[in-house]
Amino acid sequence: MRYELYYWPEIQGRGEYVRLALEAAEADYVDVARESGRGMGVSAMMRMMDSEKTECVPFAPPFLKAGDVLVGQAANILLFLGTRLGLAPDDEAGRLWVHQLQLTVADFVTEIHDTHHPIASGLYYEDQKAEAAERASDFLQHRLPKFLGYFDRVLERNPHASGYLAGRALSYADLSMFQLIEGLRYAFPNAMKRAERDVAALVGLHDRVAQLPAIARYLASERRIPFNEMGIFRHYPELDS
Amino acid sequence: MRYELYYWPEIQGRGEYVRLALEAAEADYVDVARESGRGMGVSAMMRMMDSEKTECVPFAPPFLKAGDVLVGQAANILLFLGTRLGLAPDDEAGRLWVHQLQLTVADFVTEIHDTHHPIASGLYYEDQKAEAAERASDFLQHRLPKFLGYFDRVLERNPHASGYLAGRALSYADLSMFQLIEGLRYAFPNAMKRAERDVAALVGLHDRVAQLPAIARYLASERRIPFNEMGIFRHYPELDS
Repeated sequence: MRYELYYWPEIQGRGEYVRLALEAAEADYVDVARESGRGMGVSAMMRMMDSEKTECVPFAPPFLKAGDVLVGQAANILLFLGTRLGLAPDDEAGRLWVHQLQLTVADFVTEIHDTHHPIASGLYYEDQKAEAAERASDFLQHRLPKFLGYFDRVLERNPHASGYLAGRALSYADLSMFQLIEGLRYAFPNAMKRAERDVAALVGLHDRVAQLPAIARYLASERRIPFNEMGIFRHYPELDS
Repeated sequence: MRYELYYWPEIQGRGEYVRLALEAAEADYVDVARESGRGMGVSAMMRMMDSEKTECVPFAPPFLKAGDVLVGQAANILLFLGTRLGLAPDDEAGRLWVHQLQLTVADFVTEIHDTHHPIASGLYYEDQKAEAAERASDFLQHRLPKFLGYFDRVLERNPHASGYLAGRALSYADLSMFQLIEGLRYAFPNAMKRAERDVAALVGLHDRVAQLPAIARYLASERRIPFNEMGIFRHYPELDS
């Protein structure tokens, strides 16, 4: 099965959580909007979204095509891929738990995005700088430690003590946690230096994921898009108090 | 199976999407935080969240206890309940599609919430009124028609032409769509009067759901908490331009 991932080609964004799962499992996939040639590129992605023939039309990228199945919403794509790629437990309760963690990651990601876009996602950061400063300040003081502390507690309490968030083995939620820590370090280096002191277990998880051979190869490759100021995690020094 | 729902007792909030599914299916459930007596009330909910013994500890309410299984995140609870209550298709592709719609509902709900709390969920509306006016204005102009238009298109394109969003029968996504229309009418009556003109199919779905006997009985009962200015959908006339 060759998976087709559709996502914006110039950012990690919400597509990165899916890319990390595909890469960790060394799955056969094509990142459609980043390829050129017939049936590829951003225009191919837009055609899928605008087509009258697409039954399960997604609200926004990312979406994944797997044979006849089209799946949208990053967390839903991971739910679909999880058991197929060996990145989720086999039992229903385990699968739901990993998915629950992923939905909490998604909530966290939205709040991170809104630190630089608290008023309107359609406006520039420069048009909402004052409000962004207020929102980012509240985020760093209250929300960042709350979310990180939660995931750290989940990791510490895992009854299997596997060093992963859920169950006995690596799951897509662990890969997402790596991405969150990595992105937060890029966006808020000062604040993260402080915050990481209280979540040592989570930082250890980040480091273990980074050293997985398939992930290390991916991170060193050109397939990994560098962080930039168009994505979710943006480094605006004035927001990193 | 008697389900135990845990959610804040004074608001519809994100718990209402679960309540509507339980009510539509006439499931046996107890709304724990709204009951008094031993093992009930908000204190019982807080104990579950704070307990060192809870393995799958939720980040926030709502969460659902079903025997030994504890499931958090509204969309994840509905994923769990969907097939059990006959409110989701049996096949995997159908289940994923309904869940995808629900995750898009969840994104919509977050944006609705942020119209009155664009800076900090921990502050009062009164402390972020100016920013709320800006965010609500952008929301009503751009995001409201985009989300409603998307769901209207999904409904119109359903190849089964069942009058429901997905597949041949009522699903939890339809119940959530009813709640969205109902809540948006409460919060933004002027804006919705205009917006509804372009999404007639969706309004028809709202009306059909409202007339389902089990839902009609629920809406007329004391179990349905009235909309108020503590929940997601708040009526602040100054935001309804």
